[in-house]
Amino acid sequence: MTKIYNLSQIKKVIKELHAIREIEEGFKAYSQGKSVVPPVGELIFKNPPGDVHIKYGYLMDDDYYVIKIASGFYESQESNQYTSDGLMLLFKKGTGALACALLDECYLTHVRTAAAGAVVAKYLAPKQVHRIGILGAGAQGRMQLKYLKSIINSREVIVWGLNQKELDEYKKDMEKSGYNIQTTLNASDIATNCNLIVTATPSTSPLLSADQIEKGVHITAMGSDTPEKNELDPRILQKADLVVADSISQCLVRGEINHALKADLLNEEDIVELGNVITDKELQRSSEGQITVADLTGVAVQDIQISKAVYEALSLPQA
Amino acid sequence: MTKIYNLSQIKKVIKELHAIREIEEGFKAYSQGKSVVPPVGELIFKNPPGDVHIKYGYLMDDDYYVIKIASGFYESQESNQYTSDGLMLLFKKGTGALACALLDECYLTHVRTAAAGAVVAKYLAPKQVHRIGILGAGAQGRMQLKYLKSIINSREVIVWGLNQKELDEYKKDMEKSGYNIQTTLNASDIATNCNLIVTATPSTSPLLSADQIEKGVHITAMGSDTPEKNELDPRILQKADLVVADSISQCLVRGEINHALKADLLNEEDIVELGNVITDKELQRSSEGQITVADLTGVAVQDIQISKAVYEALSLPQA
Repeated sequence: MTKIYNLSQIKKVIKELHAIREIEEGFKAYSQGKSVVPPVGELIFKNPPGDVHIKYGYLMDDDYYVIKIASGFYESQESNQYTSDGLMLLFKKGTGALACALLDECYLTHVRTAAAGAVVAKYLAPKQVHRIGILGAGAQGRMQLKYLKSIINSREVIVWGLNQKELDEYKKDMEKSGYNIQTTLNASDIATNCNLIVTATPSTSPLLSADQIEKGVHITAMGSDTPEKNELDPRILQKADLVVADSISQCLVRGEINHALKADLLNEEDIVELGNVITDKELQRSSEGQITVADLTGVAVQDIQISKAVYEALSLPQA
Repeated sequence: MTKIYNLSQIKKVIKELHAIREIEEGFKAYSQGKSVVPPVGELIFKNPPGDVHIKYGYLMDDDYYVIKIASGFYESQESNQYTSDGLMLLFKKGTGALACALLDECYLTHVRTAAAGAVVAKYLAPKQVHRIGILGAGAQGRMQLKYLKSIINSREVIVWGLNQKELDEYKKDMEKSGYNIQTTLNASDIATNCNLIVTATPSTSPLLSADQIEKGVHITAMGSDTPEKNELDPRILQKADLVVADSISQCLVRGEINHALKADLLNEEDIVELGNVITDKELQRSSEGQITVADLTGVAVQDIQISKAVYEALSLPQA
């Protein structure tokens, strides 16, 4: 019997999960070759603009395989507001029976993406983060801060967005979570004032340029997940001491790294994979002065890990 | 609000649909470039053996995009019995909202596959079919006969299978549908006695050899949908007067055509696409003596067409 869960049921159990730990374990398994993750399935729409991603696969030791569908459609180019939606499906290996459908409306994709941002910060952020910069005042820009909270001590934040209205809403929402939020319409304010920067936009042209980036900064670029999207000047990756990909194979064709490779500003052999950063201290930040960049395109292991954890939590007898 | 339908609800409306017509229209749109169908997503398992296919895309003029998941797992290599499962998902373009989930347990994949077999027979079978040969006594071997009924007059059938038990069950089931069924454990009986042959097995080595194939035969090979599966000796395609692919791009890498191309027994430019056969009389069977082969790997347009039709039927106010 297939179990179908809706968003409110999923939200009820999410706090019980150790999402950051689950995602960290997923990246480790991925980089150790313990998972099967085929290339991302993709539909890209022009009018109205949007994209759909199908991410799927399994851990070799698991009883399930997972197929995740997540979409983002701009309602308006101008406001840069996304409508995101989607679901996650767990199937039993050996029979293909649908064990459960998580009608999460893209919520779990936001959670597993933010948890990846936290994993990255754990190993790559400077020890002393004096201020966090967030580019993008949408759902993911909020979620990133939530999941950084247990990893990063700083509560000082500057957020950049496309209009004051969305910035005011962001400030209102996130100050409830204990952050001091400043807002800006000028992305260079982020570069100048923050040493942990997270980009969370669907931009197709760079928001930060290389000359703005100072020593000791870590940037997590998680908005660009298609071959076209682009949040960072590729020369930032050239300037960086350490460039980390969530998945090297995916980053060869999508995200920031793909742009830097195409522009001949980065060599493939200089890219390090996140799962290896987690397990190898030599690949982590080694000094406060380093510039580090992590490019997150979103890997199916994250979807596999979060959906299994949610399914297990939902399957427990409720008190 | 997402609508979720189960198999029994889906089966109730299937008879009201013109499945063959819907699938025919889908192939036309596909070959005319009016659809977007990315490469098939695939998971292949070794232990226990099985495969999962994700087929997806949309017609440019439609309001929906469709993602279909279908799996086949052998419970036992020996009995050659599949457990098939899966579902079809319709999403609204422009928002990505899940309009409906058809929990069809692979039933609609069987329907749309059999309907494609009927479309092929309509344009490629000899005018006088004296006996139909079916290789494979599973769900698809049954469904093919059902959908051929409105296209082909002959009710004489020989079915080949791996053991007498499954053949006896097949005979019992299909004689109820008005066919005279003979059974055989020797595939050459099919080649010798039938001039419309349908292969519907998950075989990975040829079941029919080229020297067995006589003039005036049409073969629809629909079992092989992965790069590995293989039901026909590739020399049959070399011997054929006409080789038709449901999708040329898919058949370059999966199905019978892919094997014949790799063996250098077929040229890519000699392959004709089914949607073009439908619209161009010159590409259809032109004499009773021709040998024709259609290779069906299963194209997302079929899933798109059948799921839209089912969704529409299910959305009608019930009497």
